[in-house]
Amino acid sequence: MKLQFAKRMSYLKASEIREILKVTAQEDVISFAGGLPAPELFPVDEIGEINRIILQEAGTKALQYTTTEGYAPLREWIAERMNTRLGTLFDKDNILITHGSQQGLDLSGKVFLDEGDIVLCESPTYLAAISAFKSYGCRFIEIPTDENGMVPDALENVLAKTQNIKLIYVIPTFQNPTGRTWSLERRRKLAELSSAYHVAVIEDNPYGELRFEGTSLPSVKSFDVSGNILCTGSFSKIFCPGFRIGWIAGDKDIIHKYVLVKQGTDLQCNTMAQMTIAEYLNRYDIDRHIGKIVEVYKKRRDTAIKSMEQYFPGNVTFTYPEGGLFTWVELPEGIPARKILDKCLERKIAFVPGSSFFPNENKENTFRVNYSNMPEDKIGKGLKIIGEVIKEYMKESE
Amino acid sequence: MKLQFAKRMSYLKASEIREILKVTAQEDVISFAGGLPAPELFPVDEIGEINRIILQEAGTKALQYTTTEGYAPLREWIAERMNTRLGTLFDKDNILITHGSQQGLDLSGKVFLDEGDIVLCESPTYLAAISAFKSYGCRFIEIPTDENGMVPDALENVLAKTQNIKLIYVIPTFQNPTGRTWSLERRRKLAELSSAYHVAVIEDNPYGELRFEGTSLPSVKSFDVSGNILCTGSFSKIFCPGFRIGWIAGDKDIIHKYVLVKQGTDLQCNTMAQMTIAEYLNRYDIDRHIGKIVEVYKKRRDTAIKSMEQYFPGNVTFTYPEGGLFTWVELPEGIPARKILDKCLERKIAFVPGSSFFPNENKENTFRVNYSNMPEDKIGKGLKIIGEVIKEYMKESE
Repeated sequence: MKLQFAKRMSYLKASEIREILKVTAQEDVISFAGGLPAPELFPVDEIGEINRIILQEAGTKALQYTTTEGYAPLREWIAERMNTRLGTLFDKDNILITHGSQQGLDLSGKVFLDEGDIVLCESPTYLAAISAFKSYGCRFIEIPTDENGMVPDALENVLAKTQNIKLIYVIPTFQNPTGRTWSLERRRKLAELSSAYHVAVIEDNPYGELRFEGTSLPSVKSFDVSGNILCTGSFSKIFCPGFRIGWIAGDKDIIHKYVLVKQGTDLQCNTMAQMTIAEYLNRYDIDRHIGKIVEVYKKRRDTAIKSMEQYFPGNVTFTYPEGGLFTWVELPEGIPARKILDKCLERKIAFVPGSSFFPNENKENTFRVNYSNMPEDKIGKGLKIIGEVIKEYMKESE
Repeated sequence: MKLQFAKRMSYLKASEIREILKVTAQEDVISFAGGLPAPELFPVDEIGEINRIILQEAGTKALQYTTTEGYAPLREWIAERMNTRLGTLFDKDNILITHGSQQGLDLSGKVFLDEGDIVLCESPTYLAAISAFKSYGCRFIEIPTDENGMVPDALENVLAKTQNIKLIYVIPTFQNPTGRTWSLERRRKLAELSSAYHVAVIEDNPYGELRFEGTSLPSVKSFDVSGNILCTGSFSKIFCPGFRIGWIAGDKDIIHKYVLVKQGTDLQCNTMAQMTIAEYLNRYDIDRHIGKIVEVYKKRRDTAIKSMEQYFPGNVTFTYPEGGLFTWVELPEGIPARKILDKCLERKIAFVPGSSFFPNENKENTFRVNYSNMPEDKIGKGLKIIGEVIKEYMKESE
């Protein structure tokens, strides 16, 4: 006899990425699959020094329970940082510390979604956001996107015609998986539509600090007049992901609801990790550290773009990201990326087929390339092989 | 215009404990309110030493993403420990690392509960389990308990007559809030009923290692013949709570479902914290450390019991816990603990009124006393004042 599980268990499936990552754990695989930051850039020595100081000066506090909201000095820093860089008007009480920005998405599902509610998202979108929201029984409507973000007319059309839309989920800066960045105009327009149609926006921003070139743009939140917009952020890509420290920010009344659900979910985030990051920000220059990351990733992006230009057939297109971790490849219609992946895996090269990034549609001829986690020679070598495999496949299927 | 939130937001309320804890953050308050372990017993120096070693030897790994399942050596230790102490038959693949045992409860809700499903629990039960499960829209049926655990006839009666029971939630060892421990016979019987009625059991066990006297009992899980029973555990009470590391253990097929939902919830737990605990367990003698905790808490329990015997009126009863953190006080009918609390707070003494621990019923004349987080002199002083307040209240209401 079987136990009865929740209905959601019948439609949740394993993240393809994390399954592929298991395969790519072998040392000799060249992986464009994960979204892993470059570990050689983690501030290991600084963390060691800070850990020592914190344990010496406030050891028992660092190891004890703390408030659900999170460590106040860290929340203060985040609020100031967002105000300076993203044009928000936050103080610490607008900020809840979460287990990475991923938990911000899960808690958003818990706060907003009932079964049958609708989430609007970019097409394609971050695949673990799909599973986070889906576990609350929602449906998705994908909004077409171009190089400037969601197409506003398409968005408004859906908003005007559809009942039970609870959330609009977007990653406006260096989007995952496409690497694209929304224009200022589209950001403003989204804030307007959110207000006009009374729908909350989750503005996910784990990569925004990693800009290689061009001008930083204000957040969608900075255009918010109704208090409908919530923003996530993360230390995973600018400090280290292993600490699992991110945040969600928004109007105090709404953040209070998030605090409430986080209490029942896991009480709070790791006290020591929060204090370590706060003390790092206090003692060291995070901008200098981010500068180092940007320098390395920019070179890797350049290598990736150059290699794809050189080795991919002319009818394969890809995005040019101004920052972040990803570029997005589109093969000619009818060439399934999963088939290409199978052949690449035989040659110890991995990436994530694009179909995982569409909640409903299934653009089989796309895939995502992560360039942040490998040295340039491997990026060049790997993309060369992918190019060869694509060409072989095209030839065979002629 | 207001945003529309999920239905659950209308019935979730703030944890009374965490609200009271904010009040008791002042230094001069004597608090019996929290479930905080004694911070002076945290292995601060050992953690410092281990952090140094880990960052030196495997810094980039400790700060990077890891698998959702958790750090393998830690899961191996947990499996062995449970097998030795609780009579289970686990290996590492039966274990998922969670953000404290609290997340084990939240994930259990996600894996098992649809709106309208029913959870059976002890009456009273752990209040943050109520909020964890409630956020999935379940209803509760409280099963009467006595000094040996849930009354089996009452449990079977409900199981036989009720549709849609998905979970039975129990804390069989040093229960929160009562401090009571289930007898061997009741444990066996629960496993039998779980199997006969095909209902999953969540056996929550955050305090089981903290036994002051008497004999350790095998887990309910050790009597499981159907694979229906899941067990949580935690390092919060035997190591430190600030790391937020606990686990859920069960049949591999079921744990695989938990891994799936954890992927979308927050990807994984803090890598460094997991490695630190694993290395601590490798280098130091946790049993010796637990021995120290037990020694201190036993004295505090003794002081608490002695003080209540001495200062509480004869018609006030309380439990005698053989371990753990809590004792449970029952006032005569008609004396509301909340009124007593108000008067105690004026005299800077805090505890948690019992009504929070009942999902449906509301036994106003009960409260929980935590004795783990204060030196003996304060325990004595605080309980003396509570005794005085109770007596005054009784006099006034004569």
